[in-house]
Amino acid sequence: MSRLDSFIRRLQAQRACLDHAAELIQGVDGVVLELGLGNGRTYDHLRELFPDREIFVCERRVAAHPDCVPPPERLILGDMRETLPALHDRLGGRVVLAHFDVGTGDAAANRAIAAELTAFIALLLCRGGVLVSDPQIDAPELAPLPLPKGIAPERYHLYQRK
Amino acid sequence: MSRLDSFIRRLQAQRACLDHAAELIQGVDGVVLELGLGNGRTYDHLRELFPDREIFVCERRVAAHPDCVPPPERLILGDMRETLPALHDRLGGRVVLAHFDVGTGDAAANRAIAAELTAFIALLLCRGGVLVSDPQIDAPELAPLPLPKGIAPERYHLYQRK
Repeated sequence: MSRLDSFIRRLQAQRACLDHAAELIQGVDGVVLELGLGNGRTYDHLRELFPDREIFVCERRVAAHPDCVPPPERLILGDMRETLPALHDRLGGRVVLAHFDVGTGDAAANRAIAAELTAFIALLLCRGGVLVSDPQIDAPELAPLPLPKGIAPERYHLYQRK
Repeated sequence: MSRLDSFIRRLQAQRACLDHAAELIQGVDGVVLELGLGNGRTYDHLRELFPDREIFVCERRVAAHPDCVPPPERLILGDMRETLPALHDRLGGRVVLAHFDVGTGDAAANRAIAAELTAFIALLLCRGGVLVSDPQIDAPELAPLPLPKGIAPERYHLYQRK
């Protein structure tokens, strides 16, 4: 399998997990949180999936397509190790879907960043809230969910806040 | 259709066109030319498709994954407006498959770059050689080929050297 094959499968898995998560949270109140804006493609997909929900985005610095930059009142700039704890007063327990993909391109580095941030993410999620994640995440507050049909194990990850 | 949807379709079209081109040139002698290395994902796919062919790569400067950097003797660094004409002595009429994707992310800019380089690319291709291209290309020496099944018109482009 070439890197092109592997990349296409990863993007398909990401999209399938987001679409599936959107079904899971139907009818549940809450905001959406995009952890890592990157070029804004996934943010654009979230906007399509959730036209009626507020979508907040955390990113170190914006490098997205100009059409895919969130409005300033929902853009949280800075190191997530600082911005996520500070978000607690504003969004604690109010996030019904979070998507985590900081996309360093290095799987071990992504897991390490995820491990540092997991406790803060869990505190932002409401009970029953869903976390869609590129890296695998181990946290007592998060139960793994089955992946959508056709997505190979470990290609992407889904969790639910207990 | 979100930018994520659109990106996945573009990558699938790229891969389908490359795989189709590989069938078209089966049994025809010649080297492969990758115009634009980028992160090296497509180069990696070309390596898988053509384990027995020489693959040359033109790129302004290398920013690819370390596993996807071609050996120095087949890496042509610099502005393609200068390096492609200079390649003529070495590869003129010997390229059986060229892939053009300079990937600026701006369709109009990509077409403009392609227009500047088309004449040089055509001179490198052998008769019957195939050009797989992200931007549309207009050149008297190149005849459009039908896209593989399932790929929407204009999503990617295939040409054959007359």
